[in-house]
Amino acid sequence: MNHIIAVDIGGTHLRAAAYPLSSLEPLQHYRIKTYQGKRTPQQNLLQAIRSVWPPQGSVLGIGVAVPGPVDPYQGWVLSTPNIPEWRNLPLAQWLSEQFQCPAWIENDANLAALGEWRYGAAQGHHDVLYLTISTGIGGGVIIADRLLRGAHGMAAELGHVTVWPEGPLCSCGLPGHLEAIASGPAIVRYVREQMSGGVSSSLAKAPLLSADQVAQAARQGDVLASQAFQRAGKYLGIALASFLHIFDPSIVVLGGGVSQSGDLLFQPMKEQLRQSVFHPRYLERLQIVTASLGDSAGLMGARALVEDQLHLQKNRPDP
Amino acid sequence: MNHIIAVDIGGTHLRAAAYPLSSLEPLQHYRIKTYQGKRTPQQNLLQAIRSVWPPQGSVLGIGVAVPGPVDPYQGWVLSTPNIPEWRNLPLAQWLSEQFQCPAWIENDANLAALGEWRYGAAQGHHDVLYLTISTGIGGGVIIADRLLRGAHGMAAELGHVTVWPEGPLCSCGLPGHLEAIASGPAIVRYVREQMSGGVSSSLAKAPLLSADQVAQAARQGDVLASQAFQRAGKYLGIALASFLHIFDPSIVVLGGGVSQSGDLLFQPMKEQLRQSVFHPRYLERLQIVTASLGDSAGLMGARALVEDQLHLQKNRPDP
Repeated sequence: MNHIIAVDIGGTHLRAAAYPLSSLEPLQHYRIKTYQGKRTPQQNLLQAIRSVWPPQGSVLGIGVAVPGPVDPYQGWVLSTPNIPEWRNLPLAQWLSEQFQCPAWIENDANLAALGEWRYGAAQGHHDVLYLTISTGIGGGVIIADRLLRGAHGMAAELGHVTVWPEGPLCSCGLPGHLEAIASGPAIVRYVREQMSGGVSSSLAKAPLLSADQVAQAARQGDVLASQAFQRAGKYLGIALASFLHIFDPSIVVLGGGVSQSGDLLFQPMKEQLRQSVFHPRYLERLQIVTASLGDSAGLMGARALVEDQLHLQKNRPDP
Repeated sequence: MNHIIAVDIGGTHLRAAAYPLSSLEPLQHYRIKTYQGKRTPQQNLLQAIRSVWPPQGSVLGIGVAVPGPVDPYQGWVLSTPNIPEWRNLPLAQWLSEQFQCPAWIENDANLAALGEWRYGAAQGHHDVLYLTISTGIGGGVIIADRLLRGAHGMAAELGHVTVWPEGPLCSCGLPGHLEAIASGPAIVRYVREQMSGGVSSSLAKAPLLSADQVAQAARQGDVLASQAFQRAGKYLGIALASFLHIFDPSIVVLGGGVSQSGDLLFQPMKEQLRQSVFHPRYLERLQIVTASLGDSAGLMGARALVEDQLHLQKNRPDP
């Protein structure tokens, strides 16, 4: 039996799964802390893959979802949050040598988009916009049945689009990006700033603050907490209108932890979207849905990546 | 000999050209006012096409570049500036019946992008961002050797992307679009507003004002005129950085009348772009050039559209 190995490099953990080609259920699944024990992240990655390696049959390829910018064409990790030593790391080649089988890497939001399109909420669509809203904001786009990659493989960085030039600083250091206004930390930052400015809120007592707590407070009637989500939703709506004008998708899939706040975020987002779309046709038959693969989106996308690459190779003429 | 007929629906004129398949030089070229004589725009369009119809050989197809939103899949003009009676007009089907040959339509900025890619400044690139800056701002994008169209065929409306939510109103009625800040009329509007606010300028005496005049004044040392281009260039740079993060092209092609202001606009644009790109890799090997097909971009793009469609049809399995 043939298998695909899928790997998801997360913020704190590495995950690996072995999928039989004929099934979407992993044969084996393994999760390990990036810095578990005294081993390097690369050693832990080897262990994760070895742990799921199928005892019988062969592995056709390994696909890896990596947060942060990668060069998918060369298989290099340029840099990735939480693993500072992975800078300009030829990860795909190294894995390929270690396991004697082909390996590919791709940005994790791109792969989540690919996963949701192939196996999840966006099945059957040809033009898909995927946004993940959590600690950061990432994007992935399917255009006419193909993943948008770009010349350097760094397209669809939809969190780093300027929606308010005078706005707050983004994690990347630049002002006014969508991520700086509508990500989880941005929502928390807004609440904090307002409270320091004297606005009262039930959240004043919370020593640490998460977007989840802000959502809970909003549901319990906290005015500032509601405003924080309305503000994030408004800018998401403005950005989403621009993304419709840019990509004209037939479905928008919203993933990531902050998406689970549901209508707290989506209601103001959709209201703003209606106001900000410059032609009603963009909204005709447009679906706006939440992601359906949950935590598995990256793994499923990594699996889809290998499927795609193997298919490409099959169609390539002999050299 | 086989031919392609290309048509460009301009602001005030209709143009048609007949290209032998084997040549980029039109056999015939015809230009007529949209409302010439007492004829309707459709009648003038028929006359333009008849005037270039090759006396010998056959016509394989007709391609039409239309300003404003179209449905390229159904061949409908949804609406187009300057021809108010063309609303929801099934133009492709009508032309096809009139001339007994296949016909296709597409947004003019998309076709200018296709033309510049196939025959002009962007030849050999796989990922192309085309921006035309004139009365409006239009966009066209090539992604991995294919024109970006979208689910309704309305993608790449890059002038209608919000870069400043509190900014001036766009021609479409919404605030803060790139077109509202960096198009020719937007540059003129800024100069006018500043002069009404008491800012002195050599342009105060000009009864009518064009972006070209503002450019001329800037070159002659007029401070306000320079500022107007710096402001437009700044927002173009901010938008361009977002477009790099979104599409990651290997070339940016700038067309349209306002682009001819050259460094007046491009110098502040490039300076802002360098500041606004969140990863230096986007700029590696990136070319930023002016369009090379001039007025013919739409016609050449319409020709390329027909080539593409005929090729697609050839590859389609028999029904």
